[in-house]
Amino acid sequence: MPVRPNNNIFYAQSGGVTAVINASACGVIETARQHPELGKVFAGRNGIIGALREELIDTSVVSDATIAELRHTPAGAFGSCRYKLKTIEQNRAEYERLIEVFRAHDIGYFFYNGGGDSQDTANKVAQFSMDMNFPITCIGVPKTVDNDLPITDCCPGFGSVAKYVAVSIREAGLDVASMCESSTKVFVLEVMGRHAGWIAGAAGLAAEQEGDAPHIIVFPEIPFDKTAFLARTKACVDKYGYCAIVVSEGAHYEDGTFLADQGTRDAFGHAQLGGVAPALANMVKDALGYKYHWAVSDYLQRAARHIASGTDVEQAYAMGKAAVEFALAGKNAVMPIVVRENSKPYRWSVGEAKLSDVANVEKKMPRNFITEDGFGITDAAREYFAPLIQGEDYPPYENGLPRFARMQHVLAPKKLPVWK
Amino acid sequence: MPVRPNNNIFYAQSGGVTAVINASACGVIETARQHPELGKVFAGRNGIIGALREELIDTSVVSDATIAELRHTPAGAFGSCRYKLKTIEQNRAEYERLIEVFRAHDIGYFFYNGGGDSQDTANKVAQFSMDMNFPITCIGVPKTVDNDLPITDCCPGFGSVAKYVAVSIREAGLDVASMCESSTKVFVLEVMGRHAGWIAGAAGLAAEQEGDAPHIIVFPEIPFDKTAFLARTKACVDKYGYCAIVVSEGAHYEDGTFLADQGTRDAFGHAQLGGVAPALANMVKDALGYKYHWAVSDYLQRAARHIASGTDVEQAYAMGKAAVEFALAGKNAVMPIVVRENSKPYRWSVGEAKLSDVANVEKKMPRNFITEDGFGITDAAREYFAPLIQGEDYPPYENGLPRFARMQHVLAPKKLPVWK
Repeated sequence: MPVRPNNNIFYAQSGGVTAVINASACGVIETARQHPELGKVFAGRNGIIGALREELIDTSVVSDATIAELRHTPAGAFGSCRYKLKTIEQNRAEYERLIEVFRAHDIGYFFYNGGGDSQDTANKVAQFSMDMNFPITCIGVPKTVDNDLPITDCCPGFGSVAKYVAVSIREAGLDVASMCESSTKVFVLEVMGRHAGWIAGAAGLAAEQEGDAPHIIVFPEIPFDKTAFLARTKACVDKYGYCAIVVSEGAHYEDGTFLADQGTRDAFGHAQLGGVAPALANMVKDALGYKYHWAVSDYLQRAARHIASGTDVEQAYAMGKAAVEFALAGKNAVMPIVVRENSKPYRWSVGEAKLSDVANVEKKMPRNFITEDGFGITDAAREYFAPLIQGEDYPPYENGLPRFARMQHVLAPKKLPVWK
Repeated sequence: MPVRPNNNIFYAQSGGVTAVINASACGVIETARQHPELGKVFAGRNGIIGALREELIDTSVVSDATIAELRHTPAGAFGSCRYKLKTIEQNRAEYERLIEVFRAHDIGYFFYNGGGDSQDTANKVAQFSMDMNFPITCIGVPKTVDNDLPITDCCPGFGSVAKYVAVSIREAGLDVASMCESSTKVFVLEVMGRHAGWIAGAAGLAAEQEGDAPHIIVFPEIPFDKTAFLARTKACVDKYGYCAIVVSEGAHYEDGTFLADQGTRDAFGHAQLGGVAPALANMVKDALGYKYHWAVSDYLQRAARHIASGTDVEQAYAMGKAAVEFALAGKNAVMPIVVRENSKPYRWSVGEAKLSDVANVEKKMPRNFITEDGFGITDAAREYFAPLIQGEDYPPYENGLPRFARMQHVLAPKKLPVWK
């Protein structure tokens, strides 16, 4: 392949970060370094904002050893952002600025590591850059703990959260089982998932035998039925002595009201934003009188690199690597995906999806993954989830703590006026 | 040593369980099995309640392999309880019942695996049994995530929570750092510790360089100063772009009011029990307007066997082993303890404390472990904490999840009337 004049790469992380998004970055950078026809990899400081501000982190000054450490470093080593480009009609100036920055830094490749919104943006940039007569090869790199991207079998980032929540509810379940005779009888763990219950569902893997935690899963896909929920909770306490519950943050009533919206007010009349876990726990206490405990794992779950899934790390890296290979093969406006070849034994390969097919489509849990009563997962779900949490990819430890990459952000010298 | 007629052992787990209390049980049972002069080890079903109810789990029918698995199984494999015996004057019948059950089952040894209250009980049983002319050898086995027992350098269970919270805040801190440019700027992690800030303090180990998370620790030992706290939070956001906070559940104002007591009421006028993390997060939001996230790890932290400290597991096992050896050496009303010989390199040995010296004394963080401003830990604290989180003692995994012991509770046939 002939060397392009604009053979530098722009890579950006987008949206909520994960335990393995840096493994994708590692895949991009390590693969690019193996190809002399490619130039430098610039990473956007704080994602796409870094391109608009011309804050380009020059990864070429970072040692191979530090780049290798990205594979086991959680969160976004270059910074991410919650910033969605408007449509070209709404804000053409933003797109023009992107092209201007890319042109100024000889950037011919744009790898966007994010979810559905980001792939929509990448797709628009691909089209717009052609219109501007400065074609940029745009390749998506999938990422989201929510696991809600279409076409790909799963999303890098999800498997590690899945493993974290399944391990955590197994451990906490044993704790409650120990205490329930004279103390805590109900435990509620709140997990992420505003629209889709993939994470909550994966926690169900912890239950392998009759009576194992979790006993109840509350999904956003199933409107919350308080009467049925309380009856099930009581039945579990009666039968097993305790009840361990996993609830999606997005759990809601039939009318769309979130369970987390408790309608409480503080001394000044401000609405009090509780989590859904304490809301459910209080509901149980009020109705059934059981002593409870609750946990909200929040960022802990998606940052938990210490218990990352081996499958997830491998796939995250492979997606980054494939993005570079796709670009070198002349592909454009596509995203590598995970294709499941077989579940038992698990075999997967790298496939390809058009960005236009990925953008802005949200994949929810299929109804047949949820048991008929709405509180558990089916065998079909188990078959889907099980391979995704396989393998323990432990980071190295130093002084009892995981040693993560410390990435210096050396910016490429600016060449353009300040962007506003 | 001549074989005593009452050479059976009664072992019980007491109070809140930990990631390594079963490692102590493993130490007791494996060591007892090596001594033919000792009889069966009975474990109280749900702790001391099991003795009162004559529900004695016969561990002699459990395979060596399953007993070995206890070493890596969190929570209380035989059940624990929150039940404190009254004084002998208040409820002599309970003590008489214990002796009656011990006599009926040829039990001459009582190993009580718990905190200060439990050691007080064990001490009383030792004295009472002599008065009853049926002397029982009573040995304590230390346990508590709160790390608040006196004399011993640390308490089994603490090191693993310490490791969990330090790892978690390091990981979540990186997450917030990634997002802070356009999203979350403040993250609050609530950890256990109602009276003592040992756990919160240990989280401080995660900060090794200027700017590392956590930036603020809120201790129960230091009355909460809202003005100083908010000023510090703002200073961190200004300087580092974000602020990661660890707070003890027991954090309180000068007048003793807990931060977690938000004074909120639900639709029915019931007091709403929030966690301290959401309370602090809301305080920051109201005063400074920063977007926040918060997590409450609750049972997850003390059950987190998947990230247990190697030092902690080793010490927990050693305490159980030493309890048996103490008993065989004719000691009574004592507890093995951890003696720190040296910090760098860490060396420790098994020592001994009288139960009467351990009972009902609560060890708080020394003031010189907390920085003068009250929001951090000193070098002295680091030297103390560091060895306790060393080493990763990973459990075995099966299908992507830790494989823990599944303990069948086979009860010894009852010989006495039902206890009420």
